[in-house]
Amino acid sequence: MGTLRVTVWGENLHEQREAIVQAHYPRGMHATIAEGIEEHLGQRAHVRTATFEQPQHGLSEEVLAETDVLTWWGHIAHAGVDDTVVERIRERVLLGMGLIVLHSGHGSKIFGRLMGTTCMLRWRDAGERELVWNVAPGHPITRGLPEVFAIPEQEMYGEFFDIPQPDELIFISSFTGGEVFRSGCAFRRGQGRIFYFSPGHETYPVYHHPAVRRVIANAVDWAAQPGLAPYSTFGKALKSPTGWYAP
Amino acid sequence: MGTLRVTVWGENLHEQREAIVQAHYPRGMHATIAEGIEEHLGQRAHVRTATFEQPQHGLSEEVLAETDVLTWWGHIAHAGVDDTVVERIRERVLLGMGLIVLHSGHGSKIFGRLMGTTCMLRWRDAGERELVWNVAPGHPITRGLPEVFAIPEQEMYGEFFDIPQPDELIFISSFTGGEVFRSGCAFRRGQGRIFYFSPGHETYPVYHHPAVRRVIANAVDWAAQPGLAPYSTFGKALKSPTGWYAP
Amino acid sequence: MGTLRVTVWGENLHEQREAIVQAHYPRGMHATIAEGIEEHLGQRAHVRTATFEQPQHGLSEEVLAETDVLTWWGHIAHAGVDDTVVERIRERVLLGMGLIVLHSGHGSKIFGRLMGTTCMLRWRDAGERELVWNVAPGHPITRGLPEVFAIPEQEMYGEFFDIPQPDELIFISSFTGGEVFRSGCAFRRGQGRIFYFSPGHETYPVYHHPAVRRVIANAVDWAAQPGLAPYSTFGKALKSPTGWYAP
Amino acid sequence: MGTLRVTVWGENLHEQREAIVQAHYPRGMHATIAEGIEEHLGQRAHVRTATFEQPQHGLSEEVLAETDVLTWWGHIAHAGVDDTVVERIRERVLLGMGLIVLHSGHGSKIFGRLMGTTCMLRWRDAGERELVWNVAPGHPITRGLPEVFAIPEQEMYGEFFDIPQPDELIFISSFTGGEVFRSGCAFRRGQGRIFYFSPGHETYPVYHHPAVRRVIANAVDWAAQPGLAPYSTFGKALKSPTGWYAP
Repeated sequence: MGTLRVTVWGENLHEQREAIVQAHYPRGMHATIAEGIEEHLGQRAHVRTATFEQPQHGLSEEVLAETDVLTWWGHIAHAGVDDTVVERIRERVLLGMGLIVLHSGHGSKIFGRLMGTTCMLRWRDAGERELVWNVAPGHPITRGLPEVFAIPEQEMYGEFFDIPQPDELIFISSFTGGEVFRSGCAFRRGQGRIFYFSPGHETYPVYHHPAVRRVIANAVDWAAQPGLAPYSTFGKALKSPTGWYAP
Repeated sequence: MGTLRVTVWGENLHEQREAIVQAHYPRGMHATIAEGIEEHLGQRAHVRTATFEQPQHGLSEEVLAETDVLTWWGHIAHAGVDDTVVERIRERVLLGMGLIVLHSGHGSKIFGRLMGTTCMLRWRDAGERELVWNVAPGHPITRGLPEVFAIPEQEMYGEFFDIPQPDELIFISSFTGGEVFRSGCAFRRGQGRIFYFSPGHETYPVYHHPAVRRVIANAVDWAAQPGLAPYSTFGKALKSPTGWYAP
Repeated sequence: MGTLRVTVWGENLHEQREAIVQAHYPRGMHATIAEGIEEHLGQRAHVRTATFEQPQHGLSEEVLAETDVLTWWGHIAHAGVDDTVVERIRERVLLGMGLIVLHSGHGSKIFGRLMGTTCMLRWRDAGERELVWNVAPGHPITRGLPEVFAIPEQEMYGEFFDIPQPDELIFISSFTGGEVFRSGCAFRRGQGRIFYFSPGHETYPVYHHPAVRRVIANAVDWAAQPGLAPYSTFGKALKSPTGWYAP
Repeated sequence: MGTLRVTVWGENLHEQREAIVQAHYPRGMHATIAEGIEEHLGQRAHVRTATFEQPQHGLSEEVLAETDVLTWWGHIAHAGVDDTVVERIRERVLLGMGLIVLHSGHGSKIFGRLMGTTCMLRWRDAGERELVWNVAPGHPITRGLPEVFAIPEQEMYGEFFDIPQPDELIFISSFTGGEVFRSGCAFRRGQGRIFYFSPGHETYPVYHHPAVRRVIANAVDWAAQPGLAPYSTFGKALKSPTGWYAP
């Protein structure tokens, strides 16, 4: 059992409703994403999954307390995610849990709540070729990856992407139609690390793509901070009684 | 009448309840803040005020539609600010309205909602000397200001201040007790500009301080973007029907 | 005569050697660039030009002392630019002069010296369509510009572009071949502002393009800081004799 | 023997000339710095030292080729450091070698060359108490460190510190005299990582301080990227012959 505890969250609704999605992901997208992480992190990681329809969406206090990194793929049920669970995730991220937000997760409550902006973008679903360019060589999320890789068919996501300027811009994509997108964006919030990665439309087999799997596994590894202690002012204004501090 | 439309929002509750605050600010802190802006921007600005106890806190759709920059001072009534008004402000900021958040406004709903973090800090109210150091010479917010200025008595605000890394760090303060604080922080969110400035505790005459007034007026000037058109994807995912764009 | 003093520097060698360049720019690229700035800034700007073959490359102490913003286009004579002049420009930028670096200027001594990195990239000259996407709506450099504009024929510049992460990323371009490029990058260094803008290959009429002209004029306006006083520690470690400062 | 190869560079001149420095560092400051790194990284690191008076300052091509992280302490001999060696270090950093610049190293050729700015500051040597505040909890460089620590006696370094805005601001210090300083600054340049850490004046036993040693060891660990391959455009504009790339 690994020391890096990962929870892969999948909405798991498209998979039940659309034949094409089921064809690509017979056990659900979350299962494939989890598999890709295990493929790369092996014994170092302990990966489990959780889905929308489970009680508390599978994300109880207990589960989150045992999670170093949470990955998030959602789409049609964004509005249905319980606000209590969203706030619980947010608090955990600010205390140091990693969060990897995938593709249509840009519109999720948790991502919007952490970013503060609309996180909206332009899109077109026409099976276009996406080229993913590494603009941060040397960043741990790019380890073992080529300077560019192609995803044969993808939904186009294009600028303007309404996010705060990323702390580190890792990937920029172009599409057949000429659009560009900041497709890999790293943020630090509180003590936590967040990575948004846009490839991954449900009607294409994107999470079987070797480079995509590598990116997600690298991101999980980068975002994990097991054993981090919370800072003293978390969630409150801390009154300091003395001159400065008692050493 | 000026072309730069400013709304100074003041909670205006301490002023009614505490003699010391009333002594410093007989017409309310918002009146003094407004006065300081007018002092520097003169005919260029049209400044009005709004307070917590007014209907819709004085921030109706109409008022915000006619506001280029909103300044915000609040404290004890943070929780009582109407969520509809908060969301209305947030939308306007993302579309380009400037927002200047002052002192205890770090704990306001609107600042927290735009930042995504807890925005908490350590504090001590002991009338300490605050030194405000300019760490961004050449930034418009520092125009006409010395490399450092002293506020004789202030509440201490200290790190860790739980905010996203500012897009531009403008001021760092130290206090008698040895604490430090990122006291002037500029952020871009959506099309809007946000400036947080920490000096300004209600029990000291901080908004009468010439350098503090200059900073706030400079910030208003910097944050104003009259006439800005909204981007097409605002608040929604925009479906692009054609190859890339119709020129 | 304008209050904003602009010096447009052009290498002016391709124009003398290649018929195609002469055809696009009969009076030199610098003349066309200067014209585009005047077109937009009008009476507000006083624009002059300087070229490589002039004594001191036309950039004497006197000229720079009277320059609020310098624009730089160079290519084949990068290595021949006098180090004394480069150092003179660098000092002026750090004290607050704006610098707009165009296209092949990425390889110039002055840009490399200010960035610290190699500033290299991948390229291909095949007359490709460049799409320039605005990723910073609300930034002054994007005023009056559409969300995207096309340059029909351009040299491709592609990532990885070895620059420090820009303080503000303004434009990202894509090319017919699928490459992407951070084509508009804003930096603050010392008290000065620097903008790199990649469109502008000499064998295409790029500086006649209305959107390109608008970007450059906006950038000049943004980078200008007339009347800025230098900070006290410029170019030296300043010994502070007293406790903190003498008010 | 460790897999993380560290070279600690020390100017080693103050140690030979001043009794007080010799008293604190009988084997040279570099020996104490090296010892602090070994103390924390143990078997994981292989640490060696190099000094100014050695041939090529002890930094031959061979030594640098076998170095994952270089630490740099220099002061009175800045101007005497060979430009060839400086350029050699710079190239290695851009290709991925970590660089930790300490205290007066702010004025070194290598730091100035990588930053592009003057890197100057204000200072006062009066044995003041320095408080070092962690403003990036969760950053690897802060692991195992308290929210603030005190150095009883230090030279004051104060703002304005003329550096590019750090990619990550890690520590801010205050001094008895009230000055503030961005004392821990992380930068990414090319594929390399750079950390500047200001504590460390030669006339005080700062490198014996447990928290200072921990910071430096953490920084070495963070900056190390053994086995990183160079990107294809390094140091040159790379002509791309085909449409976009040959997979």
